[in-house]
Amino acid sequence: MNAFRGIFPALITPMTREGDFNEDAFRRLMEYNIESGAHGFWVAGGAGESVLLEDEENARIAGAAADQAAGRAKVIMHVGAPTTERAAGMAVHAANAGVDAICAVPPFFYRPGSDEIVEHYRLVGAAADLPLFIYNLPGATGVEITLELAGKIREHVPQLAGLKHSAPAFVNTRHFASMGLSCLIGSAALLLPALTIGASGCVDGPLALSPDVWVNIWTAYHHGDIKTAEAEQDRAAELYTIFNRAGYIASMKVLISEKLGIDCGDPRPPQRPLTSEESAFVIRTAAALGMMEIEV
Amino acid sequence: MNAFRGIFPALITPMTREGDFNEDAFRRLMEYNIESGAHGFWVAGGAGESVLLEDEENARIAGAAADQAAGRAKVIMHVGAPTTERAAGMAVHAANAGVDAICAVPPFFYRPGSDEIVEHYRLVGAAADLPLFIYNLPGATGVEITLELAGKIREHVPQLAGLKHSAPAFVNTRHFASMGLSCLIGSAALLLPALTIGASGCVDGPLALSPDVWVNIWTAYHHGDIKTAEAEQDRAAELYTIFNRAGYIASMKVLISEKLGIDCGDPRPPQRPLTSEESAFVIRTAAALGMMEIEV
Amino acid sequence: MNAFRGIFPALITPMTREGDFNEDAFRRLMEYNIESGAHGFWVAGGAGESVLLEDEENARIAGAAADQAAGRAKVIMHVGAPTTERAAGMAVHAANAGVDAICAVPPFFYRPGSDEIVEHYRLVGAAADLPLFIYNLPGATGVEITLELAGKIREHVPQLAGLKHSAPAFVNTRHFASMGLSCLIGSAALLLPALTIGASGCVDGPLALSPDVWVNIWTAYHHGDIKTAEAEQDRAAELYTIFNRAGYIASMKVLISEKLGIDCGDPRPPQRPLTSEESAFVIRTAAALGMMEIEV
Amino acid sequence: MNAFRGIFPALITPMTREGDFNEDAFRRLMEYNIESGAHGFWVAGGAGESVLLEDEENARIAGAAADQAAGRAKVIMHVGAPTTERAAGMAVHAANAGVDAICAVPPFFYRPGSDEIVEHYRLVGAAADLPLFIYNLPGATGVEITLELAGKIREHVPQLAGLKHSAPAFVNTRHFASMGLSCLIGSAALLLPALTIGASGCVDGPLALSPDVWVNIWTAYHHGDIKTAEAEQDRAAELYTIFNRAGYIASMKVLISEKLGIDCGDPRPPQRPLTSEESAFVIRTAAALGMMEIEV
Repeated sequence: MNAFRGIFPALITPMTREGDFNEDAFRRLMEYNIESGAHGFWVAGGAGESVLLEDEENARIAGAAADQAAGRAKVIMHVGAPTTERAAGMAVHAANAGVDAICAVPPFFYRPGSDEIVEHYRLVGAAADLPLFIYNLPGATGVEITLELAGKIREHVPQLAGLKHSAPAFVNTRHFASMGLSCLIGSAALLLPALTIGASGCVDGPLALSPDVWVNIWTAYHHGDIKTAEAEQDRAAELYTIFNRAGYIASMKVLISEKLGIDCGDPRPPQRPLTSEESAFVIRTAAALGMMEIEV
Repeated sequence: MNAFRGIFPALITPMTREGDFNEDAFRRLMEYNIESGAHGFWVAGGAGESVLLEDEENARIAGAAADQAAGRAKVIMHVGAPTTERAAGMAVHAANAGVDAICAVPPFFYRPGSDEIVEHYRLVGAAADLPLFIYNLPGATGVEITLELAGKIREHVPQLAGLKHSAPAFVNTRHFASMGLSCLIGSAALLLPALTIGASGCVDGPLALSPDVWVNIWTAYHHGDIKTAEAEQDRAAELYTIFNRAGYIASMKVLISEKLGIDCGDPRPPQRPLTSEESAFVIRTAAALGMMEIEV
Repeated sequence: MNAFRGIFPALITPMTREGDFNEDAFRRLMEYNIESGAHGFWVAGGAGESVLLEDEENARIAGAAADQAAGRAKVIMHVGAPTTERAAGMAVHAANAGVDAICAVPPFFYRPGSDEIVEHYRLVGAAADLPLFIYNLPGATGVEITLELAGKIREHVPQLAGLKHSAPAFVNTRHFASMGLSCLIGSAALLLPALTIGASGCVDGPLALSPDVWVNIWTAYHHGDIKTAEAEQDRAAELYTIFNRAGYIASMKVLISEKLGIDCGDPRPPQRPLTSEESAFVIRTAAALGMMEIEV
Repeated sequence: MNAFRGIFPALITPMTREGDFNEDAFRRLMEYNIESGAHGFWVAGGAGESVLLEDEENARIAGAAADQAAGRAKVIMHVGAPTTERAAGMAVHAANAGVDAICAVPPFFYRPGSDEIVEHYRLVGAAADLPLFIYNLPGATGVEITLELAGKIREHVPQLAGLKHSAPAFVNTRHFASMGLSCLIGSAALLLPALTIGASGCVDGPLALSPDVWVNIWTAYHHGDIKTAEAEQDRAAELYTIFNRAGYIASMKVLISEKLGIDCGDPRPPQRPLTSEESAFVIRTAAALGMMEIEV
C-alpha cells in the first residue's frame, strides 16, 4: 500500500527580508495546508528554491518540516545536488530529522551517463534508507528520466518509491505507474487527467496557495464525480496564466504572503521579485479564480 | 454545436502490391470502422502516408472516402503540402469530392514565419470553404502550433474549426478548447485524460484497428463510468508497445490486413515493410490485448 | 582526385511573374557566375526552392543547368524527395540531362530509421550512377547526418562522393574529410575556417550574388595569403546581417534581380516576397559591402 | 590591447585519494604548462569540476593559481554559481587572491530571464572589479549566450572582457569578435579555424596535456605558416576520439597523471573513474598522437 498518495503542495521556502530561512512563516504555511486537507509536502524542491539553498539551510528546513507535520501529513524532502557526496549528506540529515521520504533531481550541470545516475541514486537512497522519489525535471537538469532509465534505477535502488513527473512526455505517467512506481504528476493543471491514467497524486507549487481546489479534484474523482473534478481542474489550469506573465517562485511568494498575511520574502537572486504591477496582477488573477480574497 | 466530436480513426492508405492506392481495401476498412461506431475519419494524414502521396492520389482518396461515408460518418481530408498552391489545389478537390472538412499540416521543410503560416491557412481555408483543422505535428514538420499562433490563425481564417493536437504540450488541449477550438487529441493513449480537460475526441491511427476500444472509452466517459473508461484506456495504451519495436505505418498495415483479411500492402519506401518476425510480434501483441484473434 | 572542389553557388530558381521557371534568367545567372570564376553549382537545393518544385520543373532545370555549364563548371543537381521513388526518378532525369553529380536531402517529414535512409540513398545513387552528395540540413529535414550515419551510407552506396554540411556540428567538417568524403561547407560565412580543417569548398546561396568574394577567399587561401582570405571572409560574413531581417530566398532573388538586371521573381508561397522597405535595406547592405552597386 | 590572448589550458582540479584538492599536483601541472608556453589558464571551470567544488575549495584554488602563475601567465578564475550571492562571494575571494580575471557560467538550474542574467553578471563583475569572461556553455547550463544577450551584458557590465564560446553556433565567434569581445574558442579541435574568423585564443581541457601542440598552432598561424598550423590542428582534433569512449574529466586526469607522473586522482562522484581498459586506451591513443610517451 502506497502511503504517498494525494495532494502534495511543493512548498516555497519563505525568507526573511535579510534572505534567511523564515521558519515561522514556513510552519504557518504548512499548518494552513494541513488544515486544508493536503496529504503531504514536497519540501525544498523546485518551488522551494532547492539548489539555491545551502546544505545547512536544507537540514534546518527538513527539521522544521518533520516537526510541524508531526505525522499529520507526509514530508518528502528534497536532497538533490550536483555531487553524490552532498546529496547523500543531505539525505542523512533529512532522515535524522524524521522526514517520511526523500526526493532528488538527478545530478545536474555535468550530464553523467545512465550508470552514473543509477549509482548516484543508489548511494543517496542507501544513505537515508527512506522511500526515495526521483524528480524528473529535464527543463532544469537537462536529464530526462526515461522509462528505460527509471527501470534501471528501480533495479538497483531498493528505496525507490516513485517520481515527480515534470517532463513533457505526459503519457509516461501511465507507463511509470504500470512499472509499479508512484507517479506524482508535476503539474497542477494536470492532476485530473493524470489520475485517469494511473497517477498517485500531484506535486506542484500552486497547490500550496489553495490546496482545497486540488483536494476537491482528488475527492470528486474518487467519488466518481467527474463533472465537479473537471470544473475544479479547469479553475486550477486558469491559474497558470499568471506564470506566463510573472516569475513562478516570486508570484507564489507574493500570493501566499498576501493570502495568509505572512511575509514570505523574495526569491533568492538572480531571480528577481515582482514589480508592484505584477504583484497586483497576480493577486487579482488568483482572486478572480476564488483562490484568495482581496479587499475592495 | 460542433459536429466533429468523438472517435476519428486516422486511416492508413491501403496499397496494392504495385504500390498504388487500393480503393477496395480502403472502402472495406472504412466500412468496418463505421460499423464499429467510429464518428468520422482523418484521411490521408500521418498514418495515411500523407505527403508521400501524389496530389492525384489524394483527390481519388477524397472521392472514395466521401462516397463510402455517405453521411454516416464525417470525413476530414488532409490536404497539407509544402506550397500553398498545392495545398489549396487539393483543398478544392476535396471540397468537390464532398468531404465534410479538411485538415492540413503547416507548410514544412522551409520553416516559414507566423505571418506566412497564417496566410497559407487563410488561402487553403478559403479554397475549400469547409471547416478546417490544423494538424499540429511538430515532430514531422518542425513547426509547433503554439497557443499564440493558433490565436492568430483563428483571427484570420474564418473556416478554422479546430486542430489535431500531436505536440508534446498536452496541457494545451485545455487551452485550445478554452479558445473555442475543437481539440482532437492526437494520441490513442490519451483520449480519456484529454476528455477531462476539454478535448472533443481523438484522431489516431491505432483507432482503425479496433475502434470499439475507443468508442467504449468515449461512451463510458459520457456515462460517467470512469472505471470502465480507464480500463479500456489502459488497454489502448498498452498497444503502443508495438510501435517501440516496429514501424508505425507498416505495423498498422500488417495488423489491419490480418484482422480484416484484406491486403493493405506495404508502406511506400523509404519506409520498409515489417520482417516476418516483426509481423508475428505485432499480431501477437494486438491479439493479447483482445484487439484481434489469431488462429492456434 | 576530387573534381568537386571550390566555390559552388547554390542557385536560386528564378521565376516568371506567373511563378513558372524562368530559364532565361537562370542561364544568365549561371553565366555571370561562371564568368566570375565559380567552380560549379548546387542546383535546385535549399536556395533553389527544392522541394517546392514539381518533378517536371526539376527535370527542366537539370537540363538547362547541364546545357549552360557545358563542361565549364560542375553541376550538382538536387533530387531529394520524401519518397524513394520520386527521388530516384528525378535522379534518372538529372543523369539523362547530363549533370555531373546529384545531391539529395535525406527523406523528410516521416523520420525513417538509419537503415531506411541508407537504403534510400543506395537506390537513388544507383538510379543515376553519378557521384552523390548528401545534403546534411537537419534544420529543414529533422534528420542529422552524423558521422556514424555517414559511415553507414559510405559502406552501402558506392556513388557517395561527399556532402554539403549545413548542420551545427562544425567540427564534423574535419571528421567527414578524414573519412574521405568531400565536405562542402554549407555556410558562406565559414568557407575559410572550414578550409583549414579539411573542407573541399563551399556551397551556399549568397555565393551566387558575388562569387568573386568567395573565389578570392579560395585563391588567397591556396596561395597562403591568410590575411586577404580573412578580410574577404569577414566581408562575406557581414552579408548575413541581411537574413536576420528579411527572408533568405526572397532577399537573394531581390539582390540578384537588382544586380544583374534580370527579374528573378518572388519565392513560391507560402514564402512571401520582401516589402519595398526590406528590398531597399538588403540592397543597401549588399552595396555597402561592395557586392553590388546602387545608383545615387 | 587585449591581454587575454593565446593558449589557455582549462585545468583539471587534481585531487588526493581522499577527494580533496591536491595543491601540489595542481602547481606542478601549472608549472609544466607555463614551461610549455601556455599564455594563461582557465581555472576551476568545466574541466576543473567547477560547480562540484565547495566555495572554500574554489578560494584555495584561486590562491594557489595566482601564486604559482606569479605574473608569468594569466589566471582566469571561474566563480559561477546558481545564486548571485555565491558567485559574487567567490569573485571577491578570487580578486583578493590576485587572479587576473574571473569567469562565470550564467546562473543555472532555474533558467532566469535575460534581465536577471544581466543583473547577475553586473553584480558579480562589480564584486571583483576585474576583467570578466562569460562562459557560454549551454550544454551544461541550458542557457545560450546569444549575440543579443551578449550585447545586453556588454551594455550593463563594464568589466566584460569576453567569453569562452562553447556553444554550437561556431559562426558567432566572428560576431562576438566584431562586438569587441575577446572570444576564446571553447574547443581544442577548433583553434585554427576560429583564429581565421577573429577568435583571441582557445580555452579547453585537452590543452593542458600537451600545450605545445596548441602553442604550435598559435605560432604557426601568426607566422602565416598555415600548413603547419593545419597539421597540428588535425593532430589535436584526433585526440577527441578519446572522449567518445571514455569520460572527459576522468580521461584528462588519467592522461595528466601518467604523463607528468603526478597522481591527479579521480573525478568527484557521480562521475566515475575510468576502468583499467579505458585508461590503457586513452593513454595509447594520446601516445600515438605524440602527446605523451609510453614505456614498451
